[in-house]
Amino acid sequence: MKTKERSSENKICPLEVAVNSISGKWKVPIVWQINEGKKRPSEFLRGIAKVDRRVLNQQLKEMEQDGILTKVSFNELPPRVEYSLTELGEKLVTILWMLNDWGKLMIPAEED
Amino acid sequence: MKTKERSSENKICPLEVAVNSISGKWKVPIVWQINEGKKRPSEFLRGIAKVDRRVLNQQLKEMEQDGILTKVSFNELPPRVEYSLTELGEKLVTILWMLNDWGKLMIPAEED
Repeated sequence: MKTKERSSENKICPLEVAVNSISGKWKVPIVWQINEGKKRPSEFLRGIAKVDRRVLNQQLKEMEQDGILTKVSFNELPPRVEYSLTELGEKLVTILWMLNDWGKLMIPAEED
Repeated sequence: MKTKERSSENKICPLEVAVNSISGKWKVPIVWQINEGKKRPSEFLRGIAKVDRRVLNQQLKEMEQDGILTKVSFNELPPRVEYSLTELGEKLVTILWMLNDWGKLMIPAEED
C-alpha cells in the first residue's frame, strides 16, 4: 500500500521543489555571494552577517546535493575548499535578479 | 542615534525583501490558488492540504499588507470575502512560473 503513494497521490510540484531548495535561511545570500565572485566558506562568513559556520556548512552541503553548487577540495595544507555555481545555479541567479527587481517594487521610495 | 540606523547601516536589499515576502510556508501555494481562479478562503483550505484556518488567515493578512493581494469583503449574510492578485501579485506569478520551470530541472526524469 505504501510504494506508489508518493508518485501517484502527491504528484511532485516543480515550484514546491524549487521554493524548498532555496528557502533555507542563508541559501539565497550564499548564491548571491558566489555570484559576486566569492568562493570560500570564510568569505561567505565575512559577507553574510550572523550566519554561523555549522549552519553555513549544512546549507552548502544541501545546495551541493541539490545540484546548485559544485564543491572543489584542493589537497593543500591548510586544506582549501571552493564553491562555484553549476549551470542550474547560474539559471537560479537569473531568476533571483528578477525577484530582486520585483522586491524593489515593494520598497517604498524614500523622499530624502 | 537610532533614527537613521535602518536606512544607512543596513541598506535594504530588494532580493531579501522579496524572498521574505514569499517565504511563509503557504504563501506561494496561496498565490498559485488565486492564479488558478480560486478566490475564497474556504477554497484555499480545500486546495491546500494541511494548512489550518488560523495560519491561512495570518498569511493572507501579511500578503495583503505587502501589497500582493487585495481583499474584498461583501456585506452579505453569511459574510463573503474574496482575494485577488494585485498588479504586484501578477508580476510575482510570472516569476513563479520561471521558478517552476527551474524546479523541473531538479526533478530526476522518471523512467516508468
